[in-house]
Amino acid sequence: MKVQNELQLLLNQKNIQYGNRGTNLENDINLSNKYYIDQKQAYIYKKPTPIKISKVDYPSKHNKVSKVVIREAYFEAPSTTDYNGIYKGKYIDFEAKETQNKTVFPLENIHKHQIEHLRNITSCGGIGFLIVRFTAHQKNFLLLAEDLFSYLETSSQKSIPLNYFEEKGYLIEESYLPRLPYLKIIDKIMEVS
Amino acid sequence: MKVQNELQLLLNQKNIQYGNRGTNLENDINLSNKYYIDQKQAYIYKKPTPIKISKVDYPSKHNKVSKVVIREAYFEAPSTTDYNGIYKGKYIDFEAKETQNKTVFPLENIHKHQIEHLRNITSCGGIGFLIVRFTAHQKNFLLLAEDLFSYLETSSQKSIPLNYFEEKGYLIEESYLPRLPYLKIIDKIMEVS
Repeated sequence: MKVQNELQLLLNQKNIQYGNRGTNLENDINLSNKYYIDQKQAYIYKKPTPIKISKVDYPSKHNKVSKVVIREAYFEAPSTTDYNGIYKGKYIDFEAKETQNKTVFPLENIHKHQIEHLRNITSCGGIGFLIVRFTAHQKNFLLLAEDLFSYLETSSQKSIPLNYFEEKGYLIEESYLPRLPYLKIIDKIMEVS
Repeated sequence: MKVQNELQLLLNQKNIQYGNRGTNLENDINLSNKYYIDQKQAYIYKKPTPIKISKVDYPSKHNKVSKVVIREAYFEAPSTTDYNGIYKGKYIDFEAKETQNKTVFPLENIHKHQIEHLRNITSCGGIGFLIVRFTAHQKNFLLLAEDLFSYLETSSQKSIPLNYFEEKGYLIEESYLPRLPYLKIIDKIMEVS
């Protein structure tokens, strides 16, 4: 049964489209979200990449089989974070990024309007955070938006050091199913608050 | 001041991209959501249309100015509803559709997996609904997901009659700002529950 599930997950993984922009972290989160959905625990989805369409070919009247084809389009900067959804009645919202840097997470990875978006949703009662993977150490951290804001208020640096994640963030231990059990961390945080 | 706001809204409207698929109802909802965001009342966004990319042109090494161009891509069926976000701490999720039919709303407008998604999020404590515009009458209704499910359980018809919306739904009166004040209805519903 477990082997079948694993096979299904791999098949699904192959079918997920990322517009050639996907990262391993994204794959792991998408698979984990799929597991949470299948288990009816949480409904969190990655938003599609916004695209500005310039040219479209419509199928001719005589050819009803073929589909509309986009012939020219461009990637746009997202105005919100990539992931949002619901868990235990709470609105969840986060951005996921990986860095190859061994000692710091460069803030250029996060758009200003994404930080603004996290401010908005936390002020409205939502749970906002970052998931950051340091690929060199193969470590994943969940950093609450509030701790991101504290850092930004006290530091003028253009990056967040790894030890800030170790101190203020939560290490997400990888597991078999789901691969990245980040909602365990949210459970802990919800218990405390 | 009001004229300036209106001008700005019109300018923003022109800049919003819908992949040639937008409807007037979508425009009105997007403008209303923008108003709610500007007023810091709610953070509800339309998800970009999911697109499957087949061919991409990368800029040559010698041409660092030009951007990545998508040369072949196809529209995909969305797996969730189009709109979600947060209002007064609550997770909000809905689908918006308009119909030219004068007497019924044909259910072929809603994908099965979108109804499944609404079931999931309401069972998780979210507020789910449809916004349906009957263009012939220029009337907009908000129908709670629970009332949609009741109808589907008791009827085998492939459409929902207008009078079901009049009886169980909530009429959204159009206004100046925001154009479609659907969160007023949610306020009423939250007061009662």
